[in-house]
Amino acid sequence: MTTVKGFTFAARSAGIRKSGRLDLGLIFSATPARCAGVFTTNKVQAAPILVSAPRVAAGLCQAVLVNSGNANACTGETGLRDAERCGRLVAEQLGIDEQLVAVASTGVIGQPLPMPLLEKAIPDLPDGLSADTVSDVATAIMTTDSFSKLSSRQGGEGQVPYTVLGVAKGAGMIHPNMATMLAFVVTDACVEPDFLRQALRQAVAGSFNIITVDRDTSTNDMVLIMANGEARNPELVSDTAAGQEFATLLREVLLDLAKMIVRDGEGATKLVHVQVSGAADADDARQVAYSVATSNLVKTAFFGEDANWGRIIAAVGYSGARVDPACIDICFDDVPVVQGGLGTGPEREAEATTVLKQAEFAVKINLGIGEAKAEYYTSDLTYEYIKINADYRT
Amino acid sequence: MTTVKGFTFAARSAGIRKSGRLDLGLIFSATPARCAGVFTTNKVQAAPILVSAPRVAAGLCQAVLVNSGNANACTGETGLRDAERCGRLVAEQLGIDEQLVAVASTGVIGQPLPMPLLEKAIPDLPDGLSADTVSDVATAIMTTDSFSKLSSRQGGEGQVPYTVLGVAKGAGMIHPNMATMLAFVVTDACVEPDFLRQALRQAVAGSFNIITVDRDTSTNDMVLIMANGEARNPELVSDTAAGQEFATLLREVLLDLAKMIVRDGEGATKLVHVQVSGAADADDARQVAYSVATSNLVKTAFFGEDANWGRIIAAVGYSGARVDPACIDICFDDVPVVQGGLGTGPEREAEATTVLKQAEFAVKINLGIGEAKAEYYTSDLTYEYIKINADYRT
Repeated sequence: MTTVKGFTFAARSAGIRKSGRLDLGLIFSATPARCAGVFTTNKVQAAPILVSAPRVAAGLCQAVLVNSGNANACTGETGLRDAERCGRLVAEQLGIDEQLVAVASTGVIGQPLPMPLLEKAIPDLPDGLSADTVSDVATAIMTTDSFSKLSSRQGGEGQVPYTVLGVAKGAGMIHPNMATMLAFVVTDACVEPDFLRQALRQAVAGSFNIITVDRDTSTNDMVLIMANGEARNPELVSDTAAGQEFATLLREVLLDLAKMIVRDGEGATKLVHVQVSGAADADDARQVAYSVATSNLVKTAFFGEDANWGRIIAAVGYSGARVDPACIDICFDDVPVVQGGLGTGPEREAEATTVLKQAEFAVKINLGIGEAKAEYYTSDLTYEYIKINADYRT
Repeated sequence: MTTVKGFTFAARSAGIRKSGRLDLGLIFSATPARCAGVFTTNKVQAAPILVSAPRVAAGLCQAVLVNSGNANACTGETGLRDAERCGRLVAEQLGIDEQLVAVASTGVIGQPLPMPLLEKAIPDLPDGLSADTVSDVATAIMTTDSFSKLSSRQGGEGQVPYTVLGVAKGAGMIHPNMATMLAFVVTDACVEPDFLRQALRQAVAGSFNIITVDRDTSTNDMVLIMANGEARNPELVSDTAAGQEFATLLREVLLDLAKMIVRDGEGATKLVHVQVSGAADADDARQVAYSVATSNLVKTAFFGEDANWGRIIAAVGYSGARVDPACIDICFDDVPVVQGGLGTGPEREAEATTVLKQAEFAVKINLGIGEAKAEYYTSDLTYEYIKINADYRT
């Protein structure tokens, strides 16, 4: 199990989820860590977002308390008081300022937090803190996830080594700009505060914001990074080789987690990498990638392992981007199915069907009119997605 | 069977669809009719769109030839020649100028029209023309539709009577701005040409453009109206009571057809009327209605008959519209489930579940911050949608 200097983890079952599963987690840094966060853009924001965002913006964080099973969203003043109360209980136990505690919740919307259960469970939580139990926290934050999600990288090549370790949850409501998705990253690297914020923003743009399972975003999404500097490395700053290495590793950790989320997409059986090139500009490239990656008809065809490029070209056409149909090429992995806007024939389509039978493949779309590129990761749309989401609360 | 003066209809099986079903239809006006059309906004446009749009724009149309089973889309120069050739064959048989023939196709993308079959079938088609066989044309244009779609109204109250009769096809890829949707409207009313165009545009905005089954739009969509004036009524013009009556009836016919399309949405079991009020402006109202009506999670909850208003309020929140969570009220039909952004409790939710068990119901969202309104019709998202679209070509 990867450990990160100065960080300890604990999880337990508070009984919020009836199953008796782990549903409450704690991340603790022995010293206050520099922090940065990205929060949901949904205008309806859950209480833990409203409580934690200003604390994270202040730049220091020492503990994160997170629960699954209840989102504490649409719970009004009571929800705010409950979120603050949970943070205060943790702070008291840990003997730290409550402003150094971030709280996060995920689960059903519109029901008050079961405070008696939390009042009972939180005081015992710090007793379980250990350097090698991050996987328990990864488990405690799962909702419809079918597996827990962790990724890490070692940095500081040729210098003082440091570790970047992330956990995430998410399987449904995954969508750019933070869906019902939580991710917590801890690192013992010493990172200059502005650079930490910038590196997180860029890493999120190149990971969680290019995945889609469905198009819904949630009230609770949060990505938080804590950097406690316990590795004692020279401070990492922008525009240096060491800073670039950190930014790259952070993006790799988040992209690992993001791809796990798509692979675990509710009911998903495929991980599809949509790659767009040859667009007139970056916005156009992104619009085409988004349009294809979010089309229900395209995603259902992936499930059917049907090389139905007609649906893809239709999604390109309605994306809003500038396109010339006669310049469009489409490949499944390296099998061309469309060249110059026309199908390449049944033989190629049969080859493409073999590609679609794989659990992971790429759809490459060259618009042929410019130089801009964009990418997206998406899943297929399946019976199981319907089952999970029709029955979620019942 | 409703008849419309001067219009005759024919349909037959050309063998384009292997099932031996009706797959070729003809609409004919004894005299050239004034016409207006609305065409797909997809940048990838099928050959019949490219051929028919300029003809319709010229203002007169006497015949429409339509086939199902093959969309003649992404077929390049060959497709254009084929579409023109089909129109010419019809024109020769009917003894009219080929510029007065509109052609339309729907079905699979990327395969050339089976011209030998069409060359054989088209010449015999006019022999079958009859005033009371419009329902055969409605059947011939079906693809994944499970029932044929017709609607009509009588106009000219207290004056010279006239009829407005429409047929449509569509069940999947239904989306604002024309999905794989074809609609043909015929009327014996005499309508001033500019007013005819304006009335059609407005009627489409208030019908086909406020329905959604999934979010995909197609390469082939077309709404065409022909007005041959055989009713001998005084010419209908804008800004008069008689003109207003015509505009209203036309919208009613199109809305009937649009609602049938949603009810027949691929795999759909519910017709849900999303009504938004209290928005800051019309754009905001439309964005909220669209966001809720197109959310996969909301639509799957409808299928699950789950009064999961959390997903609705989340969709309101990410719609991009200005909202104040504390001002939002939500009702299922007349059962309030959210007031001032908070749930109304389990008793009301149980009542709401009864509403959701109906085949048709309304979701009413009052944003509480303005006066603007918007509406949308949507369906639920079901196992059957996946089945139809995963297996469509296989």
